[in-house]
Amino acid sequence: MYKAGIAGATGYTGYELITLIHRHPQLEVGWLTSERNAGKRFNQLFSAPWTYPLIPLADAYLRTDEVDVVFLCLPHAESMEAVSRFYAAGVRVIDLSADFRLKDVNVYKRWYGIEHAAPALCAEARYGLCELYRSELSGARLIANPGCYPTSVNLGLYPLAKAGWLEKRVIIDSKSGVTGAGRKTKLIYQFAEANENITPYSVGHRHRHIAEMEQVLGATNGDSHGRGHRFLFTPHLLPVNRGILSTMYVDVPAGVTEAHIRQLYAENYAGEPFIHLLPPGEQASLAHAVGTNRCALSITPADPSQTDGSEYIVTATIDNLIKGASGQAIQNFNIAAGVEETAGLQ
Amino acid sequence: MYKAGIAGATGYTGYELITLIHRHPQLEVGWLTSERNAGKRFNQLFSAPWTYPLIPLADAYLRTDEVDVVFLCLPHAESMEAVSRFYAAGVRVIDLSADFRLKDVNVYKRWYGIEHAAPALCAEARYGLCELYRSELSGARLIANPGCYPTSVNLGLYPLAKAGWLEKRVIIDSKSGVTGAGRKTKLIYQFAEANENITPYSVGHRHRHIAEMEQVLGATNGDSHGRGHRFLFTPHLLPVNRGILSTMYVDVPAGVTEAHIRQLYAENYAGEPFIHLLPPGEQASLAHAVGTNRCALSITPADPSQTDGSEYIVTATIDNLIKGASGQAIQNFNIAAGVEETAGLQ
Amino acid sequence: MYKAGIAGATGYTGYELITLIHRHPQLEVGWLTSERNAGKRFNQLFSAPWTYPLIPLADAYLRTDEVDVVFLCLPHAESMEAVSRFYAAGVRVIDLSADFRLKDVNVYKRWYGIEHAAPALCAEARYGLCELYRSELSGARLIANPGCYPTSVNLGLYPLAKAGWLEKRVIIDSKSGVTGAGRKTKLIYQFAEANENITPYSVGHRHRHIAEMEQVLGATNGDSHGRGHRFLFTPHLLPVNRGILSTMYVDVPAGVTEAHIRQLYAENYAGEPFIHLLPPGEQASLAHAVGTNRCALSITPADPSQTDGSEYIVTATIDNLIKGASGQAIQNFNIAAGVEETAGLQ
Amino acid sequence: MYKAGIAGATGYTGYELITLIHRHPQLEVGWLTSERNAGKRFNQLFSAPWTYPLIPLADAYLRTDEVDVVFLCLPHAESMEAVSRFYAAGVRVIDLSADFRLKDVNVYKRWYGIEHAAPALCAEARYGLCELYRSELSGARLIANPGCYPTSVNLGLYPLAKAGWLEKRVIIDSKSGVTGAGRKTKLIYQFAEANENITPYSVGHRHRHIAEMEQVLGATNGDSHGRGHRFLFTPHLLPVNRGILSTMYVDVPAGVTEAHIRQLYAENYAGEPFIHLLPPGEQASLAHAVGTNRCALSITPADPSQTDGSEYIVTATIDNLIKGASGQAIQNFNIAAGVEETAGLQ
Repeated sequence: MYKAGIAGATGYTGYELITLIHRHPQLEVGWLTSERNAGKRFNQLFSAPWTYPLIPLADAYLRTDEVDVVFLCLPHAESMEAVSRFYAAGVRVIDLSADFRLKDVNVYKRWYGIEHAAPALCAEARYGLCELYRSELSGARLIANPGCYPTSVNLGLYPLAKAGWLEKRVIIDSKSGVTGAGRKTKLIYQFAEANENITPYSVGHRHRHIAEMEQVLGATNGDSHGRGHRFLFTPHLLPVNRGILSTMYVDVPAGVTEAHIRQLYAENYAGEPFIHLLPPGEQASLAHAVGTNRCALSITPADPSQTDGSEYIVTATIDNLIKGASGQAIQNFNIAAGVEETAGLQ
Repeated sequence: MYKAGIAGATGYTGYELITLIHRHPQLEVGWLTSERNAGKRFNQLFSAPWTYPLIPLADAYLRTDEVDVVFLCLPHAESMEAVSRFYAAGVRVIDLSADFRLKDVNVYKRWYGIEHAAPALCAEARYGLCELYRSELSGARLIANPGCYPTSVNLGLYPLAKAGWLEKRVIIDSKSGVTGAGRKTKLIYQFAEANENITPYSVGHRHRHIAEMEQVLGATNGDSHGRGHRFLFTPHLLPVNRGILSTMYVDVPAGVTEAHIRQLYAENYAGEPFIHLLPPGEQASLAHAVGTNRCALSITPADPSQTDGSEYIVTATIDNLIKGASGQAIQNFNIAAGVEETAGLQ
Repeated sequence: MYKAGIAGATGYTGYELITLIHRHPQLEVGWLTSERNAGKRFNQLFSAPWTYPLIPLADAYLRTDEVDVVFLCLPHAESMEAVSRFYAAGVRVIDLSADFRLKDVNVYKRWYGIEHAAPALCAEARYGLCELYRSELSGARLIANPGCYPTSVNLGLYPLAKAGWLEKRVIIDSKSGVTGAGRKTKLIYQFAEANENITPYSVGHRHRHIAEMEQVLGATNGDSHGRGHRFLFTPHLLPVNRGILSTMYVDVPAGVTEAHIRQLYAENYAGEPFIHLLPPGEQASLAHAVGTNRCALSITPADPSQTDGSEYIVTATIDNLIKGASGQAIQNFNIAAGVEETAGLQ
Repeated sequence: MYKAGIAGATGYTGYELITLIHRHPQLEVGWLTSERNAGKRFNQLFSAPWTYPLIPLADAYLRTDEVDVVFLCLPHAESMEAVSRFYAAGVRVIDLSADFRLKDVNVYKRWYGIEHAAPALCAEARYGLCELYRSELSGARLIANPGCYPTSVNLGLYPLAKAGWLEKRVIIDSKSGVTGAGRKTKLIYQFAEANENITPYSVGHRHRHIAEMEQVLGATNGDSHGRGHRFLFTPHLLPVNRGILSTMYVDVPAGVTEAHIRQLYAENYAGEPFIHLLPPGEQASLAHAVGTNRCALSITPADPSQTDGSEYIVTATIDNLIKGASGQAIQNFNIAAGVEETAGLQ
């Protein structure tokens, strides 16, 4: 039985982590931290009967011997120091913030506007997109859990990119449920503003999650005018609690047919327990993914009368709190610790 | 053509007032006030193309000659002074706050916890539940626009109460859309908290709106243990933007049959343009009322095999922002100013 | 490892059963039946990757040796024969229909309008409201899984009724998510009709679920004018997928205080893993229950200034598909088979 | 005062037409037809108090002298004969079906799979996209009301297309509320299926609404491989009642700057009462359009650091039942009849 600490446990990802840990046969909750709510109990903040006490991070640093793994759900920038300290104390660290996702600290600085405080650790960290980097994750001491949008996009396009079949310009129209914004109060996330509505935001090459797409899908240059791919990414706020749908418009080289592409995906994702490759004609919807750790994928030629055309629509859906955050964090723990990969995630 | 000023125009009721004024053949927008957003324009706060400037209340006091009527959408307590000043300046005043709804300033103090600052004006104010007090409202200079919950309850039960057929204990289970809470940010009103949820609140005899039920339906004593009716009122937060459904459980005296009751309601509300009395078997739902100034009413015997039983379920629905606030405010203006009562409200 | 057959597997309760079985450490899916969709695979009907074949009931009768338990999700009336046959074949049977819930076949006939085809088995069946009848359920061969509304009401009021503290008239205002109606197409359940709406239905003493409240809470006479309790039950269709909230208005005898009642509930439900008794001031909402097998309960005096008053509001929430159907079915299986009661339900 | 007949009045567009006619100072309801519900009254089908009788189409043909205009809300194919008969009878006809939208009957046949039954009338019909074809619509006897998706797309892109600034490939990612599918029962439109979900459909060049984009935006060849524009259009079913958001990815020629484009749109839509051109940084959301006859438009460079780049995101929102159907139908009537264009639509 392993014990897990959760730093920054009072957001939606913390709640979801606890839910999943309760279902996990080999993992249990150790301590939970919250700076703002230290001294309270978890059930005072959420509609759950869990009476775990909330401790400050400072106390958690003194109690690293009680846990085998720490999941960090802190805001980016704040995570850097905490990760460093837990890592130094010898526990396994799975960081759900953006701080250790980008290999190049210059890219980090460009997108996040601050110097990275732990560049050496950054090089040490493994990027925890499980299906793509499983072998590197086995035994890993520090894993940067991917962002929610990039998880949907990277799982959706990686086979094409790896095969060299992804043409330069990629248009990604993503839609995300409101929990993606975290558990904070802001007018645009109020029920009467978000309900019966849909709003594009961060329109233009501005959303920080593009950096992870560029890193994974092979752009050789972090900015959008480099030699690599150019991702035109438009996220939308959707009136649902959970789930991301990314509708992706891509071009493939002449000669690549739908059959080739289907074969490519089938091979790449053969045996993957959390990839749900849909048959022709079935489109990935949130219902395929919400409440699960699965990523559902559809591939459709833009012109169905010409299955050797160059334009394709790839759609990918995930639950932003599970495969896009806490579920993948558990999956990363399972891989790193050598536990059955699907444990707690069925 | 009449001109309307709106004080506190940047909440949902202000937005709705402007919408209705735009549809009104004899009313147009004069000035709009906002303390927090003075200097901005309305379209910077809402997704509407209306570029009306927002002025502070202090400026509005100097511009009373530009308007024929002022609608006040200020928080309770803040409204008292503003109403007094606009009233003194000679313009017609329709106050959407709770400050002038209660005739007895002691009752006001008991429920709102503060001394009333303008008790003389309070006596002057007419309670603007149009269908019940139309004759008193004609020509009125100061009208207190009723609360949203009490509008649904009072319209639903007034015929019974007036006829002396409403037994002492009345159980009211109300459900309201989230706009009822105003345009403010609070965790419980965030989309991901309110969506896919329903929550009772202010459970017990605690909601201030009970005071208006007691005043209208004839309780002779403001507290809940007086000689009059005892209203057990439980509001719930519903995952919809707009609309109130009040499900009311009442007893009538022996000998009063369903036919008597239907006859009673038909007579009381004969010719009322905004009362939609439903036939047996059709239940009032939000769909009957949302987007309209109507109140839909259903009356059903608790035991349909005994239409002379004593227990009845009365259901009433309104749009909380229209009949429960801005629509009824316009209706009050129409009655007071002698304009066609349905103008702007069809 | 136990194997489960599911008869009528292509509704929402079937889907939920499969989800829970996948999480259960000692249970796995055997066969699934569907009359209408026999020959297809499960993933052709739902957005899930589960390729289980669907067989007709006739085939399932020949394959009883492959399973240890059969969960029946058939419509009432249709379930009687199927239960009889599976029971006769010696497998454990958990019936989610209404057919075996009522002990008195005359009561069954009065509410459901048909003669019971298996009265002897009806006497044999145990009513599977786990927290109340656990000892009778241990080892049971045939369990009638309770209805969703009655589960919320009976768990909410049983301690009062058992103590003799529940006065005659009980008013129950229940609100249920749309999955409660099953997976069928009907205009009132269409998105654009149910969304942004709430509708009372079956108003008056007409909903069949009252029979289960009368049976459990001790009414000595099935009709609503008997000597026992009189349940005035009004269900409402709520614009959410899942969840039931029952707001119950009850009277207790003079001398019974809030402290007595809290003590009573605490004792009745001490150690119950799925009862979440909320502290004073916290109201049960759907968020307390949805996605879990829990029932959350709140108890509030109608007049909080008088904690020895006689009127109380008891609120209870459950997930209609989990504690109100498939979750409780698994819990019943666990109890009957001697498996850890919370297995698969955490 | 003009009188309107509505053929096929019992869908969502019929309901909306009646609502708008009630607000219109110069238009009132004449007769309503419904084949399936002839003999009933409108209030038996909708939650409205309107007791208009429903007559069969055959009766309406005999009562053309009672109305000045007929709005047809019939399914495509069925509308051809009805339009012909009403037109022949001399009343003004506004057809909300697809039957008279396409100028070229061969294009009609290709997309709808049937021969056009009234090719001569088809040539006679004016395409009622008011802002683009106002002068042709004045006095028109037969107007084909545009489809909902094409209204959003064509208003969004017309200035670019007309200026020759719209490059060949146009990617359109549209999201529509569920009323867009009409008032019919189908599993995918059931609340519990559509809620908390979003689903792409008709993926690939398959949706019939593309024909209207090609016709308006200047594709010289109806199929998607002609010399004209190539529209890659992906509609999605959104969990809201009403509203369409089209997110459009376009390229403009080198040398065309953001300032040029803004100037172009400002000139094209100067003085348009129903076009809401948003300032830089504000994105069109459903909240800008729902409940109104407006189309809100945003224009954003894909790379905001390079306002002379070639990639732009144009977003357009409308209410599918108002500007996308019944509101535009009223606007068309107003223009055709010489009534104030905004009458009934404020």
